[in-house]
Amino acid sequence: MSTPSPGYSMVLRVEAPATFNSTSEITTAASAAGAQVTALDIVESHPTSVVIDISCNVSNAEHRDEVRDALNTLDGVTVHKISDRTFLIHLGGKIEVTPRVSLRNRDDLSRAYTPGVARVCTAIAENPEDARRLTIKRNTVAVVTDGTAVLGLGNIGPAAALPVMEGKAALFKAFADVDAWPVCLDTKDTEEIISIVKAMAPVYGGVNLEDIAAPRCFEIEARLREELDIPVFHDDQHGTAIVTLAALYNALRVVDKNIEDVKVVVSGVGAAGNAIIQLLLANGVANVIACSRNGAIHSGETYTDPHRTWLAENTNKDSFSGSLKEAVAGADVFIGVSAPNVLDGNDIATMADGAIVFAMANPDPEVHPAEAAEHAAVVATGRSDFPNQINNVLAFPGLFRGLLDAAASDITSDMLVAAAKAIADCVEPDERNASFIVPSVFDPNVAPAVAEAVKNTALGIEG
Amino acid sequence: MSTPSPGYSMVLRVEAPATFNSTSEITTAASAAGAQVTALDIVESHPTSVVIDISCNVSNAEHRDEVRDALNTLDGVTVHKISDRTFLIHLGGKIEVTPRVSLRNRDDLSRAYTPGVARVCTAIAENPEDARRLTIKRNTVAVVTDGTAVLGLGNIGPAAALPVMEGKAALFKAFADVDAWPVCLDTKDTEEIISIVKAMAPVYGGVNLEDIAAPRCFEIEARLREELDIPVFHDDQHGTAIVTLAALYNALRVVDKNIEDVKVVVSGVGAAGNAIIQLLLANGVANVIACSRNGAIHSGETYTDPHRTWLAENTNKDSFSGSLKEAVAGADVFIGVSAPNVLDGNDIATMADGAIVFAMANPDPEVHPAEAAEHAAVVATGRSDFPNQINNVLAFPGLFRGLLDAAASDITSDMLVAAAKAIADCVEPDERNASFIVPSVFDPNVAPAVAEAVKNTALGIEG
Repeated sequence: MSTPSPGYSMVLRVEAPATFNSTSEITTAASAAGAQVTALDIVESHPTSVVIDISCNVSNAEHRDEVRDALNTLDGVTVHKISDRTFLIHLGGKIEVTPRVSLRNRDDLSRAYTPGVARVCTAIAENPEDARRLTIKRNTVAVVTDGTAVLGLGNIGPAAALPVMEGKAALFKAFADVDAWPVCLDTKDTEEIISIVKAMAPVYGGVNLEDIAAPRCFEIEARLREELDIPVFHDDQHGTAIVTLAALYNALRVVDKNIEDVKVVVSGVGAAGNAIIQLLLANGVANVIACSRNGAIHSGETYTDPHRTWLAENTNKDSFSGSLKEAVAGADVFIGVSAPNVLDGNDIATMADGAIVFAMANPDPEVHPAEAAEHAAVVATGRSDFPNQINNVLAFPGLFRGLLDAAASDITSDMLVAAAKAIADCVEPDERNASFIVPSVFDPNVAPAVAEAVKNTALGIEG
Repeated sequence: MSTPSPGYSMVLRVEAPATFNSTSEITTAASAAGAQVTALDIVESHPTSVVIDISCNVSNAEHRDEVRDALNTLDGVTVHKISDRTFLIHLGGKIEVTPRVSLRNRDDLSRAYTPGVARVCTAIAENPEDARRLTIKRNTVAVVTDGTAVLGLGNIGPAAALPVMEGKAALFKAFADVDAWPVCLDTKDTEEIISIVKAMAPVYGGVNLEDIAAPRCFEIEARLREELDIPVFHDDQHGTAIVTLAALYNALRVVDKNIEDVKVVVSGVGAAGNAIIQLLLANGVANVIACSRNGAIHSGETYTDPHRTWLAENTNKDSFSGSLKEAVAGADVFIGVSAPNVLDGNDIATMADGAIVFAMANPDPEVHPAEAAEHAAVVATGRSDFPNQINNVLAFPGLFRGLLDAAASDITSDMLVAAAKAIADCVEPDERNASFIVPSVFDPNVAPAVAEAVKNTALGIEG
């Protein structure tokens, strides 16, 4: 399923003869080799030759080399160097810390630093509530990871996780004016992570846990929620759950079913799967079957893991036992947060009429979306190259904007539901169809709508 | 010694009769009450009255009230409200986290975040050195405190210390384009602080310890220097020592004495005093006497504190015992980093000809600078309202710029000396005199000169 992606965008610097046809020959050859050519700039022109920068998207490193070789075989054409645009924009990092105050003269310095700052410190020491008014705490979120479950890459460590956390911080600012800072911890010890986050909390108005492996992430989140007076949110769990619920609201509207009536099969009982199931239950879904790689979790079995034990007791009322493929037969909704290609089109064909399939394993979904679409009414994935991308960017910026604006000390299930409804309602009724159940991540209405809904819920205001 | 300060700058909103004289009467009355009037803006004008914003510096809260009362006694004049400009600029904090990359469309997102970012993460996982090229680590410094020794305020805790750390971060960026982030830790446990800083180190290219009480600060710094592969610097110690040494170089040039020949008395053996003495010894000062509040530290006495034991063995060669006042008799240089008013003019009169006095206790120096100047050739303080301010802002931004540019893993004594020489040499020979031994903190040449000197020393390049 590998297709050219803007995440693999290259600039090939090519020397070619200065003939009328050479640019078209080059773009034709690149396209024939499977590249998506996105731009072409002549950077030097000589009497008999030109130097051209070809920007194009490729699929992977081998594909890049194939495109290069294809151009090199053209008469008189030489590929000089290849720049990787993804690496280029990462040079030096993706965020910076900038002053919000002027520091140009002595008076500025006397107010922003010594001696004036001492009075501000004293005010906070005397009245700790003032920290939210007079410091960055008001608007600042820690993006905390131990680097153990990064994207699809797994346990790559805290240093290698930093580009993701920087990207997240950049998105927080760009989408919701939240100041977020990466905290990449070189420890996998649950107790140590908890005590570090507690110790550094004075600077922050919220904590976004990110890419921490299950089951450690559950304990860390639960303990921090209990022991800190600022909201703590594991995005891999609840961010995914919010957007999944938002998509489900609109998908059910498209197929005209009620959330209380549907049978939902969830594949994957890690961080995301658990949070999705909790939120479904809180929304009145009566019939949920959770499947691990060993099949349905049911009350006839004994589990050592407390989360599976809880699922066995609180889902799958009929105590169905069997494989995932058997579980999806007759189901109204399939939600996958597990592994690639665990289902095929034939399995989807066994689902109920008007089936809804959310196959969110990344980069390769649980079932190929095109195969699923032959039998299901609505199909969504985690990918941007198919319709209906379930993307956490729809949730976390606005969610934290709302929490900070309310000076919230906790995150409740009601706030997650309010965020999901706000996202779903950003799709107007006349826009809503099987290919458009979630708004675009660039829809500027989403973050403010989520923020407003979360803030109102936090402050107990009716939306 | 309390004088009006721009750190205590107020805006009084005053309603007054619309007469020809009213503004001059108001400014005259404010000045007569001791306020420094810095601006006057008419914000509203009516047929019979005007509303005026008077910006002025006052000394303290009582003085502010005196100024207000003085204006209220004028015929037809009413002070409506008083705004404190220091608090105004602190609203919402002094720094923010901003993206360095564009995030306006899907292609941007695919490169800065998923899926493109995964290739950058993988590159760092495979080659950890790449973190300095592809993440913020290259340019980022943690400003770490436990809030136990903040300015002259003492142990006010991590939340109340945050405005100082934000100010420091703002200065880092404004003066040397360093991205610094406040880490205010809610623990006073030495081992816990060490393990937290080690755990969070992957994000940073350096650590600036700040306002941590002695003796804990010594252990924390020493251990982190040993156990981390990025430079660790306690600004209250070494920042002060660098700028003190820079000032001493130029003061000795003014009085035409050699650093090897002078007798130096240091009052205060806390964080700054210890670091200053170390740097003096490394620069060839042969005769140093360290004084605590109990007088000179000497080899005839036994100390429980390891730092005093070290001082007793390595300073005060003649084993002088006696009070601070007795110690300064005949001394060439007095350096105070201790407490207000421990000396008076008569004590300074007992010093050698061409005496140098650095009285750096804040806000009130060890000896009043005007009294000291009657007998000493050169006088410096930590204050901005006398000549020769010993201000760490001259050192830390350029120092870390140089360390980051060299990708240094350690700070050496040679680098501190190089930084001090660079600061001293920013005062041109024809500018240098008893009232100008250090450059202005706003001299744009200082940070680049310090950075260059430190970088060259780190890379083993001759300056």
